[in-house]
Amino acid sequence: MTTKNASLSYQEIVSQPEAWEKTIERVIEHRSAIEALFRETRGRQTMMVACGSSYWGARSTALVLREAAGQPVETVTGGEFYVNAQNYYGAGDSLFVIVPSRSGQTGEIKKALEIAKERADIKLLSVVVYEQSAVGEMSDLSIALPWANEESVCQTKSFTSLIAAQAAVYRLAYGLPLGLLPAIPEAGRQLIERYEEKLRQLAADRSWSNLLAAGQGKAFGLACESALIMIEMSETQSNFYHTMEVAHGPNVVASSETLAIVFQSNHMLEHERRVIRDLRQRGAKVLVIGEPEAEREYECDHFVAIPGIEDEFERALVGLIVPQLLANFRAMEKGVNPDSPSDLNPWISIP
Amino acid sequence: MTTKNASLSYQEIVSQPEAWEKTIERVIEHRSAIEALFRETRGRQTMMVACGSSYWGARSTALVLREAAGQPVETVTGGEFYVNAQNYYGAGDSLFVIVPSRSGQTGEIKKALEIAKERADIKLLSVVVYEQSAVGEMSDLSIALPWANEESVCQTKSFTSLIAAQAAVYRLAYGLPLGLLPAIPEAGRQLIERYEEKLRQLAADRSWSNLLAAGQGKAFGLACESALIMIEMSETQSNFYHTMEVAHGPNVVASSETLAIVFQSNHMLEHERRVIRDLRQRGAKVLVIGEPEAEREYECDHFVAIPGIEDEFERALVGLIVPQLLANFRAMEKGVNPDSPSDLNPWISIP
Repeated sequence: MTTKNASLSYQEIVSQPEAWEKTIERVIEHRSAIEALFRETRGRQTMMVACGSSYWGARSTALVLREAAGQPVETVTGGEFYVNAQNYYGAGDSLFVIVPSRSGQTGEIKKALEIAKERADIKLLSVVVYEQSAVGEMSDLSIALPWANEESVCQTKSFTSLIAAQAAVYRLAYGLPLGLLPAIPEAGRQLIERYEEKLRQLAADRSWSNLLAAGQGKAFGLACESALIMIEMSETQSNFYHTMEVAHGPNVVASSETLAIVFQSNHMLEHERRVIRDLRQRGAKVLVIGEPEAEREYECDHFVAIPGIEDEFERALVGLIVPQLLANFRAMEKGVNPDSPSDLNPWISIP
Repeated sequence: MTTKNASLSYQEIVSQPEAWEKTIERVIEHRSAIEALFRETRGRQTMMVACGSSYWGARSTALVLREAAGQPVETVTGGEFYVNAQNYYGAGDSLFVIVPSRSGQTGEIKKALEIAKERADIKLLSVVVYEQSAVGEMSDLSIALPWANEESVCQTKSFTSLIAAQAAVYRLAYGLPLGLLPAIPEAGRQLIERYEEKLRQLAADRSWSNLLAAGQGKAFGLACESALIMIEMSETQSNFYHTMEVAHGPNVVASSETLAIVFQSNHMLEHERRVIRDLRQRGAKVLVIGEPEAEREYECDHFVAIPGIEDEFERALVGLIVPQLLANFRAMEKGVNPDSPSDLNPWISIP
């Protein structure tokens, strides 16, 4: 370990591929319990309840579940479920609640679940990192990923592991193959090996000072997390949008001080190209995370090629290493401690 | 009209109360057609499809419909519905699609609806400003609000009128009273009269350069639009969050250069107070939009009191005048033309 890589966050970021392997194995071990729970909850109103990064991640994983289940899945912040419960369910409703959470002890989620269990008929699945947690104990099934825990405040390894675990759960629950999930550890290793130095240089380039992250479909929530990790770990002003929404106004704040990260999606090359062209005309630098074959199709400033991952979901999941490394390097460049920025807490308890 | 109020945007912002009156009347005129359409569509999977400001507004109005209907309502960007349709419905599904749109001719929505109508059984309600539009012509029922049209590029009067119209439609559809909607024109007039000068001064205070907007529940989508109007009209870096999410990371970028706008919500005074205290400790200036009686409960830098509006939804709708005026005044202060910022188009057509 060289001094320039001395943050815990760095170690946690580069150890993700190994954590993903264990995560996928662990979910497979739970296959029959997963199948049983989803059989039992079929037809229930399904909602994912989460806070912070886990909420934004759920905006992506909800679409994985929606695709597998063929029915709507709501994503609700823990605060909403706690404070505005009456907007989301009525007394006696039958709900299937899924809580992805690192700590499993976020204040508003705990309180919301306690109240909800008194008012409605709830089946609860939690996917958590901490092995012992309040939410885990309240669950009908809880899948814990202790190897994905971090010493740092900001979620990197735990976030992507929770995402991978959710996707594996939803596919197994409906008897589907795991898709490209088994390929993500190797793709992650290759990404780090090939791009780490380039990302370090890009983080050191102080000509950009704000980030715009864009993704569509199952990449949207992961694009949001790209912006949030930049905010949290490196105190960088960052925004996040559906790619096709960028043209509807937000492009106005793109300037020569903007780095835009665009996650290549399925089915929309021509629309992404138009958004990228517009951002570059406004002076922004654009980094695209995409398939190797797409590199020549995009006119962009930086291209991170992820071989062998043809789906926007898994590609964005592996590609999240890009903003994570950028955030870590930019924090160190600015003199911000990436492991413990600005008095953040690893989880929020509420009185 | 004095020179300092010479923008079209300013005129459009202050003429909103009058537009709201006409809007509510017009919706009432459509009552029987509305009742018939919602009777016919009961039990269908319901989704709101919109772009730009209309999408964020739908994040609020969907909760008004959810409350009235007692069942989930999805909000989907036009780009998602167009490019990732398979994530949202299957061949032959029965959908009730609601499109709020100023122009009624947004490229991705038009194309998405054309494709969707071939694949699924769709009933379509549109709430639009332009009297003649492609989406209007495709609709089973279209409610047009031509008096809410703007000459400016950014939506102000059209946005709030579309929101008010949607809320009126959803309540009438389920035989509910209009609630506080009839009170919003007078509350809007009072807000302008009482706070315009203060907001002009706040916009001139260059010690803040970025905005953080927060709202919970039915105020969330309107808080998002607060940030977006600041982005679009005045080219100000702005973020938007659920109020209780601010503590989960985004507070890190709050600094002495931040103005935070917090919309008071129902049921959550103590949580808002905690978020506001934290933002102020980080140096941010906080402006709360709330009930007059709540003023003494909040320790904040600015308080905009909206009398007689006890619901978070209508209060946020009237309160949107605050970021609109701030954006207009800040744009003029910066030498940005609020009526036509940075090559934005009033709507996007796609090839």
